Amino acid sequence: MASAELQWLDGGITAVPGILAGGIVAGIKPSGKKDLALIYSSTPARAAAVFTSNQVKGAPVLVSSEHVRGGQAQAIVASSGCSNVCTGEQGVADAREMTRIVGDLLRIPANHVLVAATGVIGVPLPMNRIRAALPKLAQSLSPQGGRAAAEAIMTTDTHPKEAAVRIEVGGRPVTIGGIAKGVAMLEPHLATMLCFVASDATIARGALAPVLKRAVDRSFNRVTVDSDQSTSDTVVIIANGLAENTPLETGSRGIRQFAAGVEAVTTKLARMLVKDGEGATKLVAVAVRGAANGKDALHAARAVANSPLVKAAINGQDPNWGRIMVAIGKSQAKVDQAKVAIAFDDEPLVTRGMQKEGVRLERIREIMGLPEYQITIDLGLGRGEDRVWTCDLSEEYVRLNSKYTT
Amino acid sequence: MASAELQWLDGGITAVPGILAGGIVAGIKPSGKKDLALIYSSTPARAAAVFTSNQVKGAPVLVSSEHVRGGQAQAIVASSGCSNVCTGEQGVADAREMTRIVGDLLRIPANHVLVAATGVIGVPLPMNRIRAALPKLAQSLSPQGGRAAAEAIMTTDTHPKEAAVRIEVGGRPVTIGGIAKGVAMLEPHLATMLCFVASDATIARGALAPVLKRAVDRSFNRVTVDSDQSTSDTVVIIANGLAENTPLETGSRGIRQFAAGVEAVTTKLARMLVKDGEGATKLVAVAVRGAANGKDALHAARAVANSPLVKAAINGQDPNWGRIMVAIGKSQAKVDQAKVAIAFDDEPLVTRGMQKEGVRLERIREIMGLPEYQITIDLGLGRGEDRVWTCDLSEEYVRLNSKYTT
Repeated sequence: MASAELQWLDGGITAVPGILAGGIVAGIKPSGKKDLALIYSSTPARAAAVFTSNQVKGAPVLVSSEHVRGGQAQAIVASSGCSNVCTGEQGVADAREMTRIVGDLLRIPANHVLVAATGVIGVPLPMNRIRAALPKLAQSLSPQGGRAAAEAIMTTDTHPKEAAVRIEVGGRPVTIGGIAKGVAMLEPHLATMLCFVASDATIARGALAPVLKRAVDRSFNRVTVDSDQSTSDTVVIIANGLAENTPLETGSRGIRQFAAGVEAVTTKLARMLVKDGEGATKLVAVAVRGAANGKDALHAARAVANSPLVKAAINGQDPNWGRIMVAIGKSQAKVDQAKVAIAFDDEPLVTRGMQKEGVRLERIREIMGLPEYQITIDLGLGRGEDRVWTCDLSEEYVRLNSKYTT
Repeated sequence: MASAELQWLDGGITAVPGILAGGIVAGIKPSGKKDLALIYSSTPARAAAVFTSNQVKGAPVLVSSEHVRGGQAQAIVASSGCSNVCTGEQGVADAREMTRIVGDLLRIPANHVLVAATGVIGVPLPMNRIRAALPKLAQSLSPQGGRAAAEAIMTTDTHPKEAAVRIEVGGRPVTIGGIAKGVAMLEPHLATMLCFVASDATIARGALAPVLKRAVDRSFNRVTVDSDQSTSDTVVIIANGLAENTPLETGSRGIRQFAAGVEAVTTKLARMLVKDGEGATKLVAVAVRGAANGKDALHAARAVANSPLVKAAINGQDPNWGRIMVAIGKSQAKVDQAKVAIAFDDEPLVTRGMQKEGVRLERIREIMGLPEYQITIDLGLGRGEDRVWTCDLSEEYVRLNSKYTT
């Protein structure tokens, strides 16, 4: 990623030319907070999406999968407080009706409207409230409405997540902006992740979906272990072409520049999700190298990043490397314990599977006191490498684990 | 399992004729509690063992695997407080020395002594203390010492676990007794599980290992998801032949009767481990039927039993069935959400993937108030079925999850 060409902007999805957004209180959430969001591109846009791989899928996922198949979308309507999952045929009818009403209000075809939802499972949407609120939502659309939309998709998030970047693509400025809502800490893959990205780039037919897939794989799929597993996870990208660049084709230099920008935005949003994990105070990169292959590196990194005992040790700033050994040993990655080396930032802690002689534990504890650092695990077997991000576990959870060193 | 033929006895491993045991304070644990256990059969015994499948293995596991290969053992020495894992060649030498000293003290070959340990990883055993304590430990052996041995292997366990049963095998009484130590709740597979079982049955060469493997698979592997993953997990069975029955051959009616007895003991001990999970107040069986095959049934049952959000709902007595749907949907089992039915004991809650019309939620909440109950999930796809046991999550952990209904 050529970061020299990236210019971070304030704001999120409405930093993109031609993108309007809004977020209002429809009365879905008992708390009375914003719970209905709308994103609208003033011109038709290319669209691509990635959905949950959970076999139980929410009605909005079913309807949006169908609508995005044509590769075009101009609006995204999203609700929070009720996920419209396990609601049978009525749930699908409700999701369809939302796209139809939004289409009518914006004078676009219903199948150019995508729909998403997050919240309680098994409860029907309060459609009367939503029907009443949608006209008000359409009226709220504005070029400054990105933050309100980001707020209206929140559930356990403590703050809205926005990111926007300007890049050069073939000499022309292109903007990419997005919003996201997040993950609880304890079981990241059970909290719904929603992310909506927009750009003014002109993208050739068929070129947008691979860009999104790769960006999601390298961002959200590197922070949430067993990612895309909630019943409602949805990532959407729309590109409306207002930048008037030459259409970006798959395999071109331009699409690679654009992909780097998308990945920068999704990675920034993904890291925000980790940082906003319940009670999280640290953002830790778990980097594995020397694995037999790349897949093994990812397995090992995920096993460590997802270990509650490792995360508890990160919280307690306790260099309890035995927990890291246990995690990699139980992973699917090939491990020879006598070849494992572990370092925190640049400070070595373990060599040949044992605590390094003359280890500077005080220095390790200092590093563990930082808000961000990296744990590097060298398996000493090959050239495979990968990296995932994780956070620590909050004190309440730790209370159960930190008393006893396993 | 013909339970009519099972007679539960008081006590544990020393309920078996010819089995002596003892447990003392060697000074390994900082707490000053018992931390060194010895089990001894007054006559040579057949032996079999099942060890952790973690690729990182403790030195005692390496030495015991070697010693049990001959199929004979007469003593088991086990320490708690220090696991002797990730301790390199010195760790293996220490484990070997323990078997040699115990062999000398009991006048049996060192390779008829098995060794096990649980506790902190990466720290060498305090061998001076252990050398000093072993003669005292050998002197403490007694036919009443089973409880002391059960205490001496505890780590986070709140009480010792013992079980013993008398069965008839070919018309002769046979006794089977065991002790075990347990699992923390939050990440069961990261706490070491040790279980030692003894019997006075006479077993033919090669017939004991399959009995143990099956009993472990149907007991410990049904309570600890991703079981046998700690670096030190060890289950040993010895059978000394003092019952003077006709040697039990693989495939015989007698070995099936014996296997049922062993499974009864290991299942009782396994359920004790679940009940003693940190802060656990409930023992819940998760039964899956109607799966495409047996493997799918086990995948689905484990996914539910291991879901922190399901376990939090069990603690809060909250019929949050959406979390069960999410768990089975993300499992490797084939799921068609429109065919799923869920019941708590005999009370139906979900049919065709949705909340049953006229559901009696008050009755469900009553069942969830019981100390033990069963969640039955019918996938409606085939004839595969399986069952695992789980416990609830303690209040501190729940505080983070129970506020928000996913």
